[in-house]
Amino acid sequence: MDVRAAVATKAGAPLTIETVQLEGPRAGEVLVEIKASGVCHTDLFTLSGDDPEGLFPAILGHEGAGVVVEVGAGVTTLKPGDHVIPLYTPECRTCSYCLSRKTNLCQAIRETQGRGVMPDGTSRFKMGGKEVLHYMGTSTFSNYTVVPEIALAKIREDAPFEKVCYIGCGVTTGIGAVINTAKVQPGDNVIVFGLGGIGLNVIQGARIAGADMIVGVDINPAREALARKFGLTHFVNSKEVEGDLVQYLVGLTKGGADHTFECIGNVKLMRQALECAHKGWGKSTIIGVAGAGQEIATRPFQLVTGRVWQGSAFGGARGRTDVPKIVDWYMEGKINIDDLITHVMPIDKINDAFQLMKDGTSIRSVVTF
Amino acid sequence: MDVRAAVATKAGAPLTIETVQLEGPRAGEVLVEIKASGVCHTDLFTLSGDDPEGLFPAILGHEGAGVVVEVGAGVTTLKPGDHVIPLYTPECRTCSYCLSRKTNLCQAIRETQGRGVMPDGTSRFKMGGKEVLHYMGTSTFSNYTVVPEIALAKIREDAPFEKVCYIGCGVTTGIGAVINTAKVQPGDNVIVFGLGGIGLNVIQGARIAGADMIVGVDINPAREALARKFGLTHFVNSKEVEGDLVQYLVGLTKGGADHTFECIGNVKLMRQALECAHKGWGKSTIIGVAGAGQEIATRPFQLVTGRVWQGSAFGGARGRTDVPKIVDWYMEGKINIDDLITHVMPIDKINDAFQLMKDGTSIRSVVTF
Repeated sequence: MDVRAAVATKAGAPLTIETVQLEGPRAGEVLVEIKASGVCHTDLFTLSGDDPEGLFPAILGHEGAGVVVEVGAGVTTLKPGDHVIPLYTPECRTCSYCLSRKTNLCQAIRETQGRGVMPDGTSRFKMGGKEVLHYMGTSTFSNYTVVPEIALAKIREDAPFEKVCYIGCGVTTGIGAVINTAKVQPGDNVIVFGLGGIGLNVIQGARIAGADMIVGVDINPAREALARKFGLTHFVNSKEVEGDLVQYLVGLTKGGADHTFECIGNVKLMRQALECAHKGWGKSTIIGVAGAGQEIATRPFQLVTGRVWQGSAFGGARGRTDVPKIVDWYMEGKINIDDLITHVMPIDKINDAFQLMKDGTSIRSVVTF
Repeated sequence: MDVRAAVATKAGAPLTIETVQLEGPRAGEVLVEIKASGVCHTDLFTLSGDDPEGLFPAILGHEGAGVVVEVGAGVTTLKPGDHVIPLYTPECRTCSYCLSRKTNLCQAIRETQGRGVMPDGTSRFKMGGKEVLHYMGTSTFSNYTVVPEIALAKIREDAPFEKVCYIGCGVTTGIGAVINTAKVQPGDNVIVFGLGGIGLNVIQGARIAGADMIVGVDINPAREALARKFGLTHFVNSKEVEGDLVQYLVGLTKGGADHTFECIGNVKLMRQALECAHKGWGKSTIIGVAGAGQEIATRPFQLVTGRVWQGSAFGGARGRTDVPKIVDWYMEGKINIDDLITHVMPIDKINDAFQLMKDGTSIRSVVTF
């Protein structure tokens, strides 16, 4: 079938809206009509060419929501008409990682997903007779896409696509890092580095978890008011701190925070986030994605005196199990998504969404079809 | 009173056996007759001058066992005749760190202990009228020493001093890192870097915790036989591994170890230990003490994909609570200390103990009085 997609033809070039041929779902696969898709920093990272694993031409997008149109042979958990969120971290429930109960990093289709193809090693997208690659197993910048059954979370039908698509990445990554990875407890003090689309979700995750102090660190003072709406209690403009930021934050939290989160992808901030965690028990969780080849460093004494350095991918969430719950939380008013979606536009304007992100003007832009 | 002590007069010089004047215990303090003391790498580190916090002249030693001779005003938990192990990590049970239940790093006397004095800011040792400093709050290289009540673990009276003194540091540090910090579970695979006095105790800790594979990495093939006695299942001579050691260890453990431990203090090995931990959930625990100013580094991707980097001090043990239990374990035959104490000598020969350690000939030397 002919579908309409924003195609990334090469690194650094704008996306182009194209008519692309999409093959129907093979065994274990599902054809999904995408209704809305968020535009995330990770899409920008790949499009820019900085992602050493980026492949072209490809159809980007990994934060979508839509409706099942057709299921391939052997698909048992979904049927046409089901509302779904595609998952770039699948949940097969049968690989050794899923069965370990210790991680959300399902490995069932990791290798083919990394190569931009479906689990059988081929792409469903073609343009001018040539293969166009999938991206993160989702390719949500297309009005129709094919996704493996294990990479689709079934959600309630009354949830608005242009809001809950954000649960496909940013919301779950931020809230999940607090709840699943860090396991913030009531009364904990928390410091969040970076008040963008991830950091603001970390803040509301910390509020839900019952944190006391929720300190946000950013260089953009405009973020304070919005962050307060999500639960922030103390704003620190790191440009205005005189002297050492770590010492300032340790002082502010009376010895360091129980939990700190890095939500930007800056290795220097990752170190600061670790070192302002409380001696004896403070845990620092890295969420941001650093540039290729960059390294984090610290003195081992920081760890020997009780700090823990860890990371979180997709908020430690098992997508098919946890994403529907987070959709419920949104529908019940337990979490705020509306204020984070600052821009909505048709897919034809998707390059504007990238520009708004580069400018720091948007928190999240969503494209609709 | 006159006491006999090995005094470190300055960095880099051998210890000298001297008659030193020891003042009796003040309020909250206890006079202990030291019967035996292990000689640990940390003593060597300080004596060498590499420890930026090392102070001289001082009476080193932090791995002792002895008998209470006299208690100062207000001491309620100990009486003359009690057998005790001095604790360089005290357990006051009233500071915010003790009460947090999240760390063993009691802070009650940290600041004065770091300055080589008792909690009231003065030393009990004098030589030729001049102050000689305490070391790690214990100074066990003296036949009598004064220690705060909160830094003494009361132990059973049938335990042999020249064996259980080792529980004052090395045994507890190794076994405790496995049980208290890493919390190794039955069936876990474990990799231990460095099969010295700490690493061998990590190995027996892993055996007690029910680990499956217990892999030891060392460059000294002579350590294999001894390590097998403690529970090692696979020995890897890192000098003989062709290609990348991390990849070799990941292959050996079929995806990486559930837990890895660095027991040397080498920042390069700390990185390798992290990176051979299992994707998704592997935890790497730093026990070794690195040289001043040295840093650990890795790509943040290692953490974002589920590895955890942490450290352990005194095995995460609360000394007054946990040390008596480990003494029981020794007396019940649950742990082996005898095979680790390769040399016993009178205090007069203490410089030989340092030389044996430098040569790699001893696992642990104990001096007696």
